[in-house]
Amino acid sequence: MRYDAAIIGTGPGGVSAAITLKIRNKNVILLGSGALSAKMTRAEKILNYPGLPGVSGQELAERMKAHLDSLDIRVTEERIGTVYAMGSYFALQGKDMIEAMTVILATGVFQGKTLPGEDALVGRGVSYCATCDAALYRGREVAVVGYSPSQEEEADFLSEVAARVDYFPMYRQAPALRESVNVRNETVTGIERRDGRVLIKTNAGEYAYDGTFVLRDAVGPDRLVPGLEMDGSHVKVSPDMATNLPGLFACGDVTGRPYQYIRAAGQGNVAALSAVKYLDELKKA
Amino acid sequence: MRYDAAIIGTGPGGVSAAITLKIRNKNVILLGSGALSAKMTRAEKILNYPGLPGVSGQELAERMKAHLDSLDIRVTEERIGTVYAMGSYFALQGKDMIEAMTVILATGVFQGKTLPGEDALVGRGVSYCATCDAALYRGREVAVVGYSPSQEEEADFLSEVAARVDYFPMYRQAPALRESVNVRNETVTGIERRDGRVLIKTNAGEYAYDGTFVLRDAVGPDRLVPGLEMDGSHVKVSPDMATNLPGLFACGDVTGRPYQYIRAAGQGNVAALSAVKYLDELKKA
Repeated sequence: MRYDAAIIGTGPGGVSAAITLKIRNKNVILLGSGALSAKMTRAEKILNYPGLPGVSGQELAERMKAHLDSLDIRVTEERIGTVYAMGSYFALQGKDMIEAMTVILATGVFQGKTLPGEDALVGRGVSYCATCDAALYRGREVAVVGYSPSQEEEADFLSEVAARVDYFPMYRQAPALRESVNVRNETVTGIERRDGRVLIKTNAGEYAYDGTFVLRDAVGPDRLVPGLEMDGSHVKVSPDMATNLPGLFACGDVTGRPYQYIRAAGQGNVAALSAVKYLDELKKA
Repeated sequence: MRYDAAIIGTGPGGVSAAITLKIRNKNVILLGSGALSAKMTRAEKILNYPGLPGVSGQELAERMKAHLDSLDIRVTEERIGTVYAMGSYFALQGKDMIEAMTVILATGVFQGKTLPGEDALVGRGVSYCATCDAALYRGREVAVVGYSPSQEEEADFLSEVAARVDYFPMYRQAPALRESVNVRNETVTGIERRDGRVLIKTNAGEYAYDGTFVLRDAVGPDRLVPGLEMDGSHVKVSPDMATNLPGLFACGDVTGRPYQYIRAAGQGNVAALSAVKYLDELKKA
C-alpha cells in the first residue's frame, strides 16, 4: 500500500500537516514520537500561540494529540533512516519500507554539529538508524553514541542482535538500559577508521568496533534525504514549502529560524496544501 | 509619541504579530475591528487550527481576544487611509496621524476587483477613507458605495459634514443608516468623471456628485501603502515577511494563498520577530 503522504516528525509542523492532509481526505502516515515533540513538551509556558494564552508545552502537546485523535490520525513510532526519491514516489527506509507519493519533512532543528571524523565515515562504519542497519552487525561488536535518553531503546534493540553493545551517553541523566548493554560514561571526542575497524575516541581512551551508531533526536535533513538541497544547516524551501525534490515538502524548524511553535504549525498547513495540489496534478497528468 | 510597531488588521495574522511584539516588550498599536476578523467570526467550524479541534470562528475570535486582553493589548478601531514611508519611520493617516517605527500589514484578502473607471479616479473624486477625507466635502454632495454593513458608520459620519450623502449598498442586508443618509438600492456598475463632477452609474441610472467614497473591508495594499511592491494582487514578501519597504512587513492572506487561519497566525509571528530584529538594528546604527 502506498500512502498519499508520509509525514516525518511530530512537532507542531508535522501535526499541523497531518491534520490538514486528513481533512483533505488524504491517506497519511505520521511518523514520530507518540508523545509528540519532546522539546515542546518540556516548554514551561508558551506565550504566543494565539488562542491559547500561556499554555504549557505539555498541554499544547496533549491538545494536539487530542486533535489527531479526533481525526483518527495515529502516530507510527518508527525511525526513518533514509528517504529515497524514486521518481514518481518515495521509499522510506525504516524497519520496513514505507511508500508514499509525497513526503513532508518536519524533523525539527538540526544543530549541524557532527563529531570530528563522523562525516567522512557515513556508510563506512557510522550509521544513524539501528532498526534499519542492525542486521549488518549480527554477532559483531558495535558502539552506540546516544544524544538523548530516547535513543536507549535503539541500543537495547541492537543488543538483541550484536555480540556486544557499548553505549556512550552524551547527556547527564543516568541511562536505563538492559544489562546486555555496557554503559561507558566517557565523552566521545571523535570517530576514526583504523585497520578495518571503527575507533571511538573519548576523553579517557580509544575503543574499536565493527560499526558505530550515532543517534541524535534530529538527523541532518540532507543525510535523511539524499539529494536534498540545503541552505546552510536548513532545508531550502520555496514560499509554498516545496524543496528541490518534486513531491517532497518541509515545514517547521528544519526550514530555518525563527524556531517558533506557531510558525511551524502555519508552515505545516502550507506544506500539506502544497502536497494536496501536487497529488491533484499527478492525477491529472 | 511614536510606536515601535503599528499593526493594521485584526485577523489571526495581526493578532499573532501583536502578541509576539508585546511579549518582546515592544510598544504596539493594533488597528482594526474590536470584534477581530469578521470573516473568521463567520466561520462555522475550523477543522485545522492545531490544538483547537473543530473550534468555531466565533470561539477562536473570542480566544484570541482573551489572549490580547491577557497581555493588555487594546484594539484601536481606526481606519487607516494611507501609510507613508517617511524614511526612518512611518506615518499612518487615520483620523489623526499615527507614527510608528515599523508597520505590519495584516489587512486580509483583497479581491482585486475594482469598479469600471474606479482606478483612474483615485484621488480625483474617488476616496477610500471617510474619516480621512470627509473635510474635503464639507457642504458638498457625495456618494458612498459600501461593500459591507461595517461601512455604514462611515456614511453616517459623512452625513454630519456633507450636504448630501447617497448610499449604495453592494450587499443584500438592508442598511441601518441615519435618516440624513439616502439609500439607493441600485447596483453600481461604474464610475466616471464628467463636467468636473463624479458620475455613479448604476443598473437604473446615473447620478452626479462632488466626490465618491468606495468602502470595502479590504483596500488594495498598494493603494494603502504607496510604493509597496506587489506580486499580482498580493504583497510581495521575503521568507521573513519583509516587503520592499524597509521596516514594513506583511502577514496573512494579504501575502497570498493558501488563505488559512493557522498560516496567517504563523506568518504574524515571523513578521513580528522580523520587526523586532529591524528595531534592534536601528538602535545599533
